[in-house]
Amino acid sequence: MSTTAFHIAARDGRARTGTLTLPRGEIRTPAFMPVGTAATVKAMLPGSVRATGADILLGNTYHLMLRPGAERMARLGGLHRFMNWDRPILTDSGGFQVMSLADLRKLTEEGVTFKSHVDGSTHHLSPERSMEIQRLLGSDIVMAFDECPALPATEEAVAASMRLSMRWAARSREAFGDRPGHMLFGIVQGGVTRELREESAAALRGIGFDGYAIGGLAVGEGQEAMFGVLDYTPGALPDDRPRYLMGVGKPDDIVGAVQRGVDMFDCVLPSRSGRTGQALTRRGQVNLRNARHAEDPRPLDPDCTCPTCTGYSRAYLHHVVKAGEIIASMLLTWHNLHYYQELMAGLRAAIAAGRLTEFAAAFDAERLAGDLPPV
Amino acid sequence: MSTTAFHIAARDGRARTGTLTLPRGEIRTPAFMPVGTAATVKAMLPGSVRATGADILLGNTYHLMLRPGAERMARLGGLHRFMNWDRPILTDSGGFQVMSLADLRKLTEEGVTFKSHVDGSTHHLSPERSMEIQRLLGSDIVMAFDECPALPATEEAVAASMRLSMRWAARSREAFGDRPGHMLFGIVQGGVTRELREESAAALRGIGFDGYAIGGLAVGEGQEAMFGVLDYTPGALPDDRPRYLMGVGKPDDIVGAVQRGVDMFDCVLPSRSGRTGQALTRRGQVNLRNARHAEDPRPLDPDCTCPTCTGYSRAYLHHVVKAGEIIASMLLTWHNLHYYQELMAGLRAAIAAGRLTEFAAAFDAERLAGDLPPV
Ligand SMILES: [Zn+2]
Ligand SMILES: [Zn+2]
Repeated sequence: MSTTAFHIAARDGRARTGTLTLPRGEIRTPAFMPVGTAATVKAMLPGSVRATGADILLGNTYHLMLRPGAERMARLGGLHRFMNWDRPILTDSGGFQVMSLADLRKLTEEGVTFKSHVDGSTHHLSPERSMEIQRLLGSDIVMAFDECPALPATEEAVAASMRLSMRWAARSREAFGDRPGHMLFGIVQGGVTRELREESAAALRGIGFDGYAIGGLAVGEGQEAMFGVLDYTPGALPDDRPRYLMGVGKPDDIVGAVQRGVDMFDCVLPSRSGRTGQALTRRGQVNLRNARHAEDPRPLDPDCTCPTCTGYSRAYLHHVVKAGEIIASMLLTWHNLHYYQELMAGLRAAIAAGRLTEFAAAFDAERLAGDLPPV
Repeated sequence: MSTTAFHIAARDGRARTGTLTLPRGEIRTPAFMPVGTAATVKAMLPGSVRATGADILLGNTYHLMLRPGAERMARLGGLHRFMNWDRPILTDSGGFQVMSLADLRKLTEEGVTFKSHVDGSTHHLSPERSMEIQRLLGSDIVMAFDECPALPATEEAVAASMRLSMRWAARSREAFGDRPGHMLFGIVQGGVTRELREESAAALRGIGFDGYAIGGLAVGEGQEAMFGVLDYTPGALPDDRPRYLMGVGKPDDIVGAVQRGVDMFDCVLPSRSGRTGQALTRRGQVNLRNARHAEDPRPLDPDCTCPTCTGYSRAYLHHVVKAGEIIASMLLTWHNLHYYQELMAGLRAAIAAGRLTEFAAAFDAERLAGDLPPV
């Protein structure tokens, strides 16, 4: 008997809403997963992350294998206990970040050897080692190990990389084995070429996964090209399995992707923006560094119920951003994550009510109107 | 009718415990005031500061007059609303920090002109302006404006500076006027010279204040010299008024000062230490950067009830300190402030029970025994 389940409760066009159930908790979909790279969602306590409405976090295998290390993490009782988060965690495979962060990469059919960006030590990742590390971390949703080509890349390079990733996907599936209560997701690659994406989706369906991610997007191709891929890729994946768009994205990316049938998202944008004085709101992005906020007694968003908007003025946020105070990162990250979770809740309710088109139109109109006029 | 009151509920030797009552709330004494320099206790939300047991915060006039500015703060509804803290706030007068932080100071009998360390702009402070700024901030406990000599200083320089501060104290008293619900504290100066301290205390008694601070200590003179001053200075002050030792201190400084009759304290140590990986515990200082914590599954202090000690291992704290994560500052500051407030609660209970000597002996013994042995 499976201890995991994906239930689609309602549909609106290609969009779906439902629940992904794991032993550690239920994930309401469409879901946004805050990023907890190094066993912390930066500038947030786990209880605060949960208070924003997050059902699941993402952890980064690459960072955690380097520091504190997978075997050490296992001896300490796993990532959940370590970071004090008892709900589900999805871990990436490490593949993407080896390509973007590590030094002196050496890639073979077997896997990749690289030097740590933290201390220069040498490490190895392969489908088998990635599965082992994610097991040692205690991840609830494990990602297959894939290869991400450096961009720009020719279509031939993208195709070769995708086919290597599909061979690695089969090895990941084999190495993952049978782990009740845990899920393994495959990752569709193939750049912006429909034939490659469909070949990749077919290969993954042939292997069989508990869920399917769409990788290799939001890497500079632009929203139009990304939506182009999302117009056909979700349809090439099993309808009854969750679909996860990796590393996406801006609020309008998420709305468009949900309309195209995506169920799960992760992105550093809300937390990273919060640490640079940027707020993401229903009226678009607000730069709290701007002097126009210096004497504005109004909250960032008068309709937002987060602790930042109910407790502080724009003038205060401007002050602590300018003064470089840690509380600026804490308050803006909290608001941004709260806004993302409210957006997801709005999307879920709209799909359930069959009103996603109206929701998306209102979302666009509110952003187009822009921020509150100055006091 | 006065809307403020200081009530001494119990005594043990020269130590006292009681309550200082202000319209915004009651302060249990002996009290420790966390420092909220720039309208934030660094790395803490106000609700978390309150959860540690703090009844009152300290704000820095010098920092706040430069950024966001006193008149702006008043237009925004005052410091309490600005920083989302509705309990009492004590503000210093700005004098000490003008001497330690500002550039190009020019001191006259009238006051001091200086350049901001933030943007180089020119500002002026005098007893009258300091009273006005603290009123604009909305401070509950206002400090008289005093002058702090640069150290080392001759006894003649210390005496001249103290006498200027006494003339400024009289002008502060006059400028403060009659403000029901607010208190004005005078500040005893005079370095480590008994005659000067007693002359200063007599001058302040002659003017008449709602409370009396002891300034010019914890500036490098050492604990023995400080305790020497505290052996006679509190006794030279009115018995029925609160006594505040400014900028002190380490946990053992506080215990010794409470034994000598001090009621109130402030210090950046617990928050500043928290931001550099240092924990202050009943077993002394613990450096979480040390590799011996890397695989230690135990909490920082198994007997501490703070969120850091109940939720996280030393291994986790070591990890986030090493990784430079903001949560390290958040968790260690929270623990350190919690420890300070627990120490104050222990001191209050010990005085009430007439067991302060035993409490201090146990406090010393536990620190002397040192940190937990390695796992
Ligand atoms: Zn908000
Ligand atoms: Zn603690």
